[in-house]
Amino acid sequence: MGEIALPNGIGNGNSINGVNGQSQSLNGYRKSCWYEEEIEEDLRWCFALNSILHTGASQYQDIALLDTKPFGKALVIDGKLQSAETDEFIYHECLVHPALLYHPSPKNVFIMGGGEGSTARELLRHKTIDKVVMCDIDEEVVNFCKSYLVVNKEAFRDTRLEVIINDARAELEARDDESYDVIVGDLADPIDGGPCYKLYTKSFYEFIVKPKLQQGGIFVTQAGPAGIFSHTEVFSCIYNTLRQVFKYVVPYSAHIPSYADIWGWVMASDSPLDLSAEELDLRMRQRIKGENRYLDGKTFSSASTLSKTVRKSLDNETHVYTEEAARFIHGHGKHA
Amino acid sequence: MGEIALPNGIGNGNSINGVNGQSQSLNGYRKSCWYEEEIEEDLRWCFALNSILHTGASQYQDIALLDTKPFGKALVIDGKLQSAETDEFIYHECLVHPALLYHPSPKNVFIMGGGEGSTARELLRHKTIDKVVMCDIDEEVVNFCKSYLVVNKEAFRDTRLEVIINDARAELEARDDESYDVIVGDLADPIDGGPCYKLYTKSFYEFIVKPKLQQGGIFVTQAGPAGIFSHTEVFSCIYNTLRQVFKYVVPYSAHIPSYADIWGWVMASDSPLDLSAEELDLRMRQRIKGENRYLDGKTFSSASTLSKTVRKSLDNETHVYTEEAARFIHGHGKHA
Amino acid sequence: MGEIALPNGIGNGNSINGVNGQSQSLNGYRKSCWYEEEIEEDLRWCFALNSILHTGASQYQDIALLDTKPFGKALVIDGKLQSAETDEFIYHECLVHPALLYHPSPKNVFIMGGGEGSTARELLRHKTIDKVVMCDIDEEVVNFCKSYLVVNKEAFRDTRLEVIINDARAELEARDDESYDVIVGDLADPIDGGPCYKLYTKSFYEFIVKPKLQQGGIFVTQAGPAGIFSHTEVFSCIYNTLRQVFKYVVPYSAHIPSYADIWGWVMASDSPLDLSAEELDLRMRQRIKGENRYLDGKTFSSASTLSKTVRKSLDNETHVYTEEAARFIHGHGKHA
Amino acid sequence: MGEIALPNGIGNGNSINGVNGQSQSLNGYRKSCWYEEEIEEDLRWCFALNSILHTGASQYQDIALLDTKPFGKALVIDGKLQSAETDEFIYHECLVHPALLYHPSPKNVFIMGGGEGSTARELLRHKTIDKVVMCDIDEEVVNFCKSYLVVNKEAFRDTRLEVIINDARAELEARDDESYDVIVGDLADPIDGGPCYKLYTKSFYEFIVKPKLQQGGIFVTQAGPAGIFSHTEVFSCIYNTLRQVFKYVVPYSAHIPSYADIWGWVMASDSPLDLSAEELDLRMRQRIKGENRYLDGKTFSSASTLSKTVRKSLDNETHVYTEEAARFIHGHGKHA
Repeated sequence: MGEIALPNGIGNGNSINGVNGQSQSLNGYRKSCWYEEEIEEDLRWCFALNSILHTGASQYQDIALLDTKPFGKALVIDGKLQSAETDEFIYHECLVHPALLYHPSPKNVFIMGGGEGSTARELLRHKTIDKVVMCDIDEEVVNFCKSYLVVNKEAFRDTRLEVIINDARAELEARDDESYDVIVGDLADPIDGGPCYKLYTKSFYEFIVKPKLQQGGIFVTQAGPAGIFSHTEVFSCIYNTLRQVFKYVVPYSAHIPSYADIWGWVMASDSPLDLSAEELDLRMRQRIKGENRYLDGKTFSSASTLSKTVRKSLDNETHVYTEEAARFIHGHGKHA
Repeated sequence: MGEIALPNGIGNGNSINGVNGQSQSLNGYRKSCWYEEEIEEDLRWCFALNSILHTGASQYQDIALLDTKPFGKALVIDGKLQSAETDEFIYHECLVHPALLYHPSPKNVFIMGGGEGSTARELLRHKTIDKVVMCDIDEEVVNFCKSYLVVNKEAFRDTRLEVIINDARAELEARDDESYDVIVGDLADPIDGGPCYKLYTKSFYEFIVKPKLQQGGIFVTQAGPAGIFSHTEVFSCIYNTLRQVFKYVVPYSAHIPSYADIWGWVMASDSPLDLSAEELDLRMRQRIKGENRYLDGKTFSSASTLSKTVRKSLDNETHVYTEEAARFIHGHGKHA
Repeated sequence: MGEIALPNGIGNGNSINGVNGQSQSLNGYRKSCWYEEEIEEDLRWCFALNSILHTGASQYQDIALLDTKPFGKALVIDGKLQSAETDEFIYHECLVHPALLYHPSPKNVFIMGGGEGSTARELLRHKTIDKVVMCDIDEEVVNFCKSYLVVNKEAFRDTRLEVIINDARAELEARDDESYDVIVGDLADPIDGGPCYKLYTKSFYEFIVKPKLQQGGIFVTQAGPAGIFSHTEVFSCIYNTLRQVFKYVVPYSAHIPSYADIWGWVMASDSPLDLSAEELDLRMRQRIKGENRYLDGKTFSSASTLSKTVRKSLDNETHVYTEEAARFIHGHGKHA
Repeated sequence: MGEIALPNGIGNGNSINGVNGQSQSLNGYRKSCWYEEEIEEDLRWCFALNSILHTGASQYQDIALLDTKPFGKALVIDGKLQSAETDEFIYHECLVHPALLYHPSPKNVFIMGGGEGSTARELLRHKTIDKVVMCDIDEEVVNFCKSYLVVNKEAFRDTRLEVIINDARAELEARDDESYDVIVGDLADPIDGGPCYKLYTKSFYEFIVKPKLQQGGIFVTQAGPAGIFSHTEVFSCIYNTLRQVFKYVVPYSAHIPSYADIWGWVMASDSPLDLSAEELDLRMRQRIKGENRYLDGKTFSSASTLSKTVRKSLDNETHVYTEEAARFIHGHGKHA
């Protein structure tokens, strides 16, 4: 195998690198390796692969860093895409900036999860921030991302960032002397068999999170898929659960291409959450180093104005998360 | 993302371990990366991937070395599987040993192609061999396999092996002083747009190959798929073309799991090609270092006894390969 | 094959229909048939299939009606999903209602394309409508949808609907006596090799469409993918091209799950296009029979407030569609 | 959607034609629907689909008849391919004819399973046959195949065929007055969770099958994959188990393209099983109506001469099937 008759009478094989450029000549090969994610058991989303950069496993999760053609480097945990190089900025700008901007002057922030480092990176762009505690249970994920996610190297080196390896609930309980201006929930989706649902319950919000917020403090959490069909999986329940605990609750959403869906976040506080697009833009200019790529005032007013379908179904949601009655999205954790 | 509540109250992360064991825990991940080969435009064969070890490209072809779960390391050229770690021994034992065993005492062998090195490896196991010339046009493929195919490292270092980078036809013509006991055709399949078909034609066999064989010399070539349906793609034509040029022609075949098909070879000579299974076994013991994994006398008598369907269709084949009228199998070469 | 030992000592095989319910027992089978769409050459979107309901072909296009598990019945033309039962209402409510509501009192509407019938269906819900001309070039598509898309049967029977089989440009030119309150562009995407791009050019808008609009008339067209990355394929150019021709141009977008992307539309007129969410809601109640599932005033204000990323890139778009310089999205039409 | 500008100024649509010819124009569509079989959890085999002809379910199994492009109509049970139009003749000629030809004059045959009807079809081609009892437990499968497998309609109408819906073991025990010249095992593969393994055990062969064979009677069974790797799944164990019960045991195999593997059968008797290829050919001409497509004397001598690898591993197999210790191949039955 391998021999090829000479088309041009000249036989010198030039050394050519298969990675840089040449999309024409390499198409045949490039399209033969694929990453395949089962979004639902009857729905698949597949990316052509350039390479499998790293794989690993912790006692909790399997970890992989893939180089995909459509979305660049992609972090995959337990076979589910967590974050893709080309569009993670949408997720992280939406998770972090609204809560910090709505707060008059956020200094201390606690991140539940966020081992990837991107959430800390966005938080640390805020000039008002003195301290960020990032509490992720999975040391391997943190080390994996520290080593491989170049984009977050600077954040991991920032002296304002304290990285703790622990269960978020245990850590929050332990820090009885501390409280925070903003608490950010950057947790794995409440996958069937995954243990995260304990951190999405009414009792957790009421007895652990809320007491740890300072006067005027804000809690924000990622809230799973928020598409016209998928929002009923967990988004509407997380919203309704927070509605039981906080006076003011703001759900919002944005499309994340690599997730093949709209994603949702919910912001909650006992202080009013209303700022005009103009005020948000002003605070961004004043407080945030560098410029956002996705989020500005208008974007947020659009993101927080949900479609009729989703709005109605959030209004009508009656389910409240408790440890006894959790709802799950598709997928299986290692402890399933 | 990434945080996981503590299921057991203990938070020490074990060191990253993506490879050894844990097949349960890693299944989720492992099954999400796939190599996909289009065997026909309406037929696909897909292997779960552990990793993409190396990729490269030459002026002729794209090259990749994949680590697949079902078949181990796999060499892929232009998006077509060439050779898989777990079963390449079937292909190479079948290509090499029958011709060398039928020959009374083979000393000099010329390989057309064979850049992978496995054909040379099998040839060099024969104690009678003084010299093997391996002539592959693609220096990149040769260097790639030299560097990455551990199993052939020893063969590439064997002083009896001469590696030439050239077109096989040009090289055979150039060596007007030399002739060979056995000539082995280990060429890429005559893919539509690939240039190899020139080395499967009656004129090539008649005017280039045959004159280079010594008295009693034998020519053997891989002959493409030989399944009950696929044998008409090229196998029957290669057989019929050789039948026009040599007195004795023996077609034979074997199943190669990673190819998802039966594969064919054709052996041809102007001296009779008949040995009993017992005589073959005897010569193997006498001449071959180490033991074959696949081929012995009985295996060859079975391999060279084709099914009724294939036998009839070979007998009735009228097509002869000429440069004007080549037949192709599915796929597209870079020069298509 | 097929025999199964008796697990419970009773052997009566009850007749069970494989289609209704039983998702448990049928999962094995159901997940083994898939519809696969190549959204980009390196990105695939796959739906498990219940069945392939109908297939057909016209001189222009290949047509198929599939029963998919995630999105119900799906109309596929030339291997690209056109419309899915579960979410086509999003596309068609967004295409039709904003333009009709912004118009003070729309009576006559011309649809370019729309052979599926859903656009006509939405138009005919407006009490002010006297006449709808639907002009699709592909009689087979029209007949196919008439026969198989139950949801549009009533619309196809509505006496206010005139169905014409012709090229939209030719038809508009021929009807020199007529003009319209609203013209709707419901054309196939300007696929590479597809001929539709002729109906997305500045000259077409300027010399064919605009002259056919009555005083205060509005033109609206579907405008392809409008995601944070995909909007540069055609959406931004269609917007910029219309901006050359009309005084007021409103781009808006919505997520359509079955497309795995945000979709875009552009509305254009020489009369101002500004109504509050409340006015839109009021007009909906007054003019539209039945209730929208997706669109209301707030939904439209959100849909027409694009994200910072897309807004900036639309503002900066300089490309104008002309017959000489069209831009294409991925895919291949039959005339490629 | 759907409108297409007129490329040639003529707009007459030809009548819908999704089936006959037009393979060019329909390729785009045809390649977008696929049947996917998971041969191993890390190995997939995918056929492009023309259509899904029928689906059904019984209390035991899910049933589907697919029209595949590479292998024609395909019967799929519990998501595993059972039989494909283009190559089922290989499986059924190999299952039926050797045993019947080795028998001096077979009159009565009992089929365990075989609900598809193809095994009966091949048996009934033998002029010596007076009676065939086909005992399949799944009435739905039998009715499904009766209605849809045109190729077996004649066999199902043959008055020599008695179709019984029952568990094969129960039925054989019940018929204490009857005995057979040949008993054919055409059972579903012993899938993990499937109940068939009970019909592959030593005790079943010894106490149920053997006593039901007349003097000189022969038992033959399909024996699962017999590839160079896959033969250890069940083939070698079935062989070794029968070796404990019968004096003469002949394993043989053949490649079945649609299975992407070599398949195995085992023939067993207390009377010698040796006939030359010539004698087999003679008996075929004398006893079988019509001509075999795959099997003749030479084909069988090749099929019953296993490769060195498989031969050695069968010789060394020590595992015996008992109800306590069954081995399984990949897949999951409904009762898993």
